[in-house]
Amino acid sequence: MINIVLLGAGNVASHLITTFLNSNEVNLIQVYNRTIENIEHLTEKTAITSDLSRLKEADIYIIAIPDNHITQLESQLTLKNKLVVHTSGAVAMEALKSNSNTGVFYPLQSFSKNKEVNFKTIPLCIETKQREDLTLLTTLAKAISDSVYSINSEQRKSIHLAAVFVNNFVNHLYQIGNEICDKNNVPFEILAPLIQETAKKIATLAPIDAQTGPAKRNDTDTIDKHLRMLPNNQQEIYALLTKNIYKTHGKKL
Amino acid sequence: MINIVLLGAGNVASHLITTFLNSNEVNLIQVYNRTIENIEHLTEKTAITSDLSRLKEADIYIIAIPDNHITQLESQLTLKNKLVVHTSGAVAMEALKSNSNTGVFYPLQSFSKNKEVNFKTIPLCIETKQREDLTLLTTLAKAISDSVYSINSEQRKSIHLAAVFVNNFVNHLYQIGNEICDKNNVPFEILAPLIQETAKKIATLAPIDAQTGPAKRNDTDTIDKHLRMLPNNQQEIYALLTKNIYKTHGKKL
Repeated sequence: MINIVLLGAGNVASHLITTFLNSNEVNLIQVYNRTIENIEHLTEKTAITSDLSRLKEADIYIIAIPDNHITQLESQLTLKNKLVVHTSGAVAMEALKSNSNTGVFYPLQSFSKNKEVNFKTIPLCIETKQREDLTLLTTLAKAISDSVYSINSEQRKSIHLAAVFVNNFVNHLYQIGNEICDKNNVPFEILAPLIQETAKKIATLAPIDAQTGPAKRNDTDTIDKHLRMLPNNQQEIYALLTKNIYKTHGKKL
Repeated sequence: MINIVLLGAGNVASHLITTFLNSNEVNLIQVYNRTIENIEHLTEKTAITSDLSRLKEADIYIIAIPDNHITQLESQLTLKNKLVVHTSGAVAMEALKSNSNTGVFYPLQSFSKNKEVNFKTIPLCIETKQREDLTLLTTLAKAISDSVYSINSEQRKSIHLAAVFVNNFVNHLYQIGNEICDKNNVPFEILAPLIQETAKKIATLAPIDAQTGPAKRNDTDTIDKHLRMLPNNQQEIYALLTKNIYKTHGKKL
């Protein structure tokens, strides 16, 4: 049984708390949050505190708070020989400076507060400063997920960057699609099966092989028609992505 | 029972042929293709021909061939009082000029030749020049799909444009994500759950409400770090999409 103290009450923290409380291999012994009101609903399930000097003894301390507060919070911890990890995709392990045993426990998923998640399928990217801590962190990761990767800070930075493209930017393209539909009185739901199919395809086909459309086949008639239908900002995005698709596939032909 | 003659042997044509042959409400009586070899595998299932003057009598003639050949092929048809439709998202109904009864039968999905599709869930966008033909085309559409929309040519053009954003452009962003992973020795599969989750979210949340990430919260530190990690062409895409997300959400705050 691994004993955990979790620090934080945001999206990632909440989902980890629920998952740990449901696990037979993990013992969530305490949750810390600066504002005690945000964790008071947990009082019957685990110990809570808003006082960093009253943290309990545990095997791993997980800091799941906004990126820009991680270093400062960690600098206030005075733990000896305890493993302290953060959960951020964008923050280097070296941001944890005050404790000798540090690491990262990064769940690669986009969390919404009210949407339940199944950690079993969420990739966990783990890293530790001390070699011997990797076993402990791996055990914790495998207790909640079937998909555990040993990833160093450089790699993690690149994953976070790639995630911006395939999640944040993709969602923005969905939004542009939605705007185009709204403007023409077409229900956006009509695009839902295409969106799902596009996402599913990558399971069996590399994106470079799945590419279709006017940009790839350099269908300038269609491209020109499309550009004329768009407002300036969307025109700019259409033109740039089209150029890049054509270049990518032009080179390959 | 609706009698169909189908013209074409490409992706869309093949999937329609399979679906019609499996339907109890549709009778596929003939398939035409310029190159007979491409439809010879159908000889035991339906009549085939490469001679336009030998088309059989049917209720609906479906032209499922590349966009730029539709008008020319249709001009060679000499059908009286028969409904002739094409299956293109990008071609106006008016491209069909030679026959009085024309229409469009556009399945909104991205087809791969070797991947089976279930038409039941594919949105069919239909349109007819003559009002009375809409009933016939609706009956055909509902025989194979649960998702039938009456869509005029203007709307269809906008759907096709939106589809370029949510399918072709999204796939290109997947590819950039893949490239970033490859460059850093990270398996691209690590992003698969995030990609699926991003696509699934739109079923319950409008994309504008699902937006997250450094661009939305104007996290310039992260944005600058990311830009420095990218080659020129990807930098340009990152900067433009970031600007547009920020503008969209900046206005809304």
